[in-house]
Amino acid sequence: MGEGVTRLVQGGVTSAQGFVASGVHCGIKPQKKDLALVVSRGPAAAVAGVFTTNKVKAAPVLIDMERIRSGQGRAVVLNSGNANACTGDPGLRDAREMARLTAEHLQLSEDLVYVCSTGPIGVPLPMDAIRRGIPEAVRVLGPDGAPAAEAILTTDTVQKAVAVQVTIGGQIVTVGGMSKGAGMIHPLMATTLTVLTTDATVPPAVLQAALRRAADQSFNRITVDGDRSTNDTILLFANGEAGAPEIAGPGEALDAFQAALNSVTVNLAKAVARDGEGATKLIEITVGGAQSDEDAQRAAFAVANSPLVKTAIHGAGVYWGRILAAVGYSGAEVQPDRAMVRIGPVVVAERGIQAGGPELIEQAGEHLAGQDVQVMVDLGVGRGEATVWTCDLSEEYVKENAGDLS
Amino acid sequence: MGEGVTRLVQGGVTSAQGFVASGVHCGIKPQKKDLALVVSRGPAAAVAGVFTTNKVKAAPVLIDMERIRSGQGRAVVLNSGNANACTGDPGLRDAREMARLTAEHLQLSEDLVYVCSTGPIGVPLPMDAIRRGIPEAVRVLGPDGAPAAEAILTTDTVQKAVAVQVTIGGQIVTVGGMSKGAGMIHPLMATTLTVLTTDATVPPAVLQAALRRAADQSFNRITVDGDRSTNDTILLFANGEAGAPEIAGPGEALDAFQAALNSVTVNLAKAVARDGEGATKLIEITVGGAQSDEDAQRAAFAVANSPLVKTAIHGAGVYWGRILAAVGYSGAEVQPDRAMVRIGPVVVAERGIQAGGPELIEQAGEHLAGQDVQVMVDLGVGRGEATVWTCDLSEEYVKENAGDLS
Repeated sequence: MGEGVTRLVQGGVTSAQGFVASGVHCGIKPQKKDLALVVSRGPAAAVAGVFTTNKVKAAPVLIDMERIRSGQGRAVVLNSGNANACTGDPGLRDAREMARLTAEHLQLSEDLVYVCSTGPIGVPLPMDAIRRGIPEAVRVLGPDGAPAAEAILTTDTVQKAVAVQVTIGGQIVTVGGMSKGAGMIHPLMATTLTVLTTDATVPPAVLQAALRRAADQSFNRITVDGDRSTNDTILLFANGEAGAPEIAGPGEALDAFQAALNSVTVNLAKAVARDGEGATKLIEITVGGAQSDEDAQRAAFAVANSPLVKTAIHGAGVYWGRILAAVGYSGAEVQPDRAMVRIGPVVVAERGIQAGGPELIEQAGEHLAGQDVQVMVDLGVGRGEATVWTCDLSEEYVKENAGDLS
Repeated sequence: MGEGVTRLVQGGVTSAQGFVASGVHCGIKPQKKDLALVVSRGPAAAVAGVFTTNKVKAAPVLIDMERIRSGQGRAVVLNSGNANACTGDPGLRDAREMARLTAEHLQLSEDLVYVCSTGPIGVPLPMDAIRRGIPEAVRVLGPDGAPAAEAILTTDTVQKAVAVQVTIGGQIVTVGGMSKGAGMIHPLMATTLTVLTTDATVPPAVLQAALRRAADQSFNRITVDGDRSTNDTILLFANGEAGAPEIAGPGEALDAFQAALNSVTVNLAKAVARDGEGATKLIEITVGGAQSDEDAQRAAFAVANSPLVKTAIHGAGVYWGRILAAVGYSGAEVQPDRAMVRIGPVVVAERGIQAGGPELIEQAGEHLAGQDVQVMVDLGVGRGEATVWTCDLSEEYVKENAGDLS
């Protein structure tokens, strides 16, 4: 494998050297696994984090935001089935106890342990279950990342794990990770939790900047800034165990690491979008010809978040007018009489009006009937461009959310 | 009836003196009425209008925005079954022809006739049907407003008509109107068309300011500025036929007229919200304790537009945490540890955490099971306040929009 070339491999959060994980059932949820642990075995690891911008932050988020200032960490304990959000001071005490118990059983300093929670809001954390679960989770720590990836799921239908390798300074470096998503993602408040691990050697400040860039190109393309759940968290641990040269700043090594990291986060983000509640399709929306990249992103999100567009695509209906109408209210500059809409390979509208007859619509409908849908809109104004991902909106989604959430 | 006291009466768009209307089937839709006409019989009428802020505007909107500058008008012709949006220059020619034909058959100057369309976007208007329908619509003009209110409906399940009377200068003045809505309203692009009529005497500039205020307190409380369909239009005709003194500017007479107008528009807007596609409930969301009224409105709309909240209420589930989480990402200032949530008469959360046990949740659930739901949130910051209306989100909504729209 050539220097700097990234390669997707089988694996996840334990693929990088020196990381172990576990996932157990402790009793927060009736039967499913609900407690996960990811640990770096070595003596030290740099940590970076990106957290929700929601003004109502869950207890574990408040604690992690405090701890991440040190740039150091060794483990993260995660639970599903309860968000520990809107739980007041008792919630903060519970989150701290979760970290402390984990630290005790791992024989670590407490402030090196991070906490993530996901599930219903406003319900006190069942600490008895968690107290029972933590020693068990520590006991079964091992090289298989799957039990941890399973234990963090809520209404997700599949585990989401990715690993990528890249050669840096002649050494193979691995970046891996796991996510949980579900909910309909933006404009919903489905919590996205992501734990990333790497055996690269990266100081905290460089790691934080790299994670921020990766998040902006991936998870922030499935959910708009400022429109987040109470619990959204991305953590990245770098333990240096690959023995590759330290990535101290800009250069080829950082570029290679960033490419590997982006590959992991984009893959995880797309997996999250595809597995939205009730979703049957991954929809990629690209807007071009915009006045700026920001304008393009604004228009792309308006299309991605329009329930009318999402339901139309669910039914494979070629209602390109709904797409243009969403662009029109997005706030982005658009020249309606120069706008173009493409569905898959088929240009369905040009200069703001339909580009052909019924065969054309039929062709576009065939594309929409698939599981991977591409929509491209040109605003006819400038050169700004952006791509975002979403899923379709099905009856199943409403059914799931009118009932209980686990 | 005392001077200035408003009173709801049976009626609609033809309740004010001197107005006639009709609704016919011309063939845009398979069987239903699809062409409506509202006409002021007298020699002159002032007209005010509020139009969509969507940058992609339908042809009839572009034409009405041009004509309304004169402040004068006598009639409006409306069709359902086709939006005449994203139809380019041919669409503009079609909209102009609709107005011209109507003017010819009414023996009016063309620029006194306004046009509204609603239905699927991007499809050429079937002009043969419209050419057949206009003479028929003119022939059957009469005092009954119901056929017109029926002909403008799309996926609406009920007609929406309201009339109000108020005494001004010893004369009874009537304000009436009709609306069509459906779609899930914001964040969708369901077109809202509203025609209002009054026999008050109001010069165009005063009429326009009054309509703007009324829209801000009603239709703009069910759909956010800038987040509109391609076709949204509110027109208000004032023909002076009640013989009441002219309302030339601020004063008691204007206050009385404004109160009557607000009563009509709030009633119509709530009727539109209640009849959202697949809706089973009208939800009123009031946010108080905000830093400003604007902040309160921002928070209220975030709650109103959250699919997680709307589906929870559909299922009568007391997920108050979803309400606080929506407030948290709205951008409004909030003190999570001082926030309060009330569902109907039941305070379910105080100081950001649940206010009581299972009985409390059960009580709140009983309120949510009804058809009129009230949610109140206090942000614990200041004195800003706002109320908005929305409907619940049901499986039925998705079914309707994954299929065809008429």
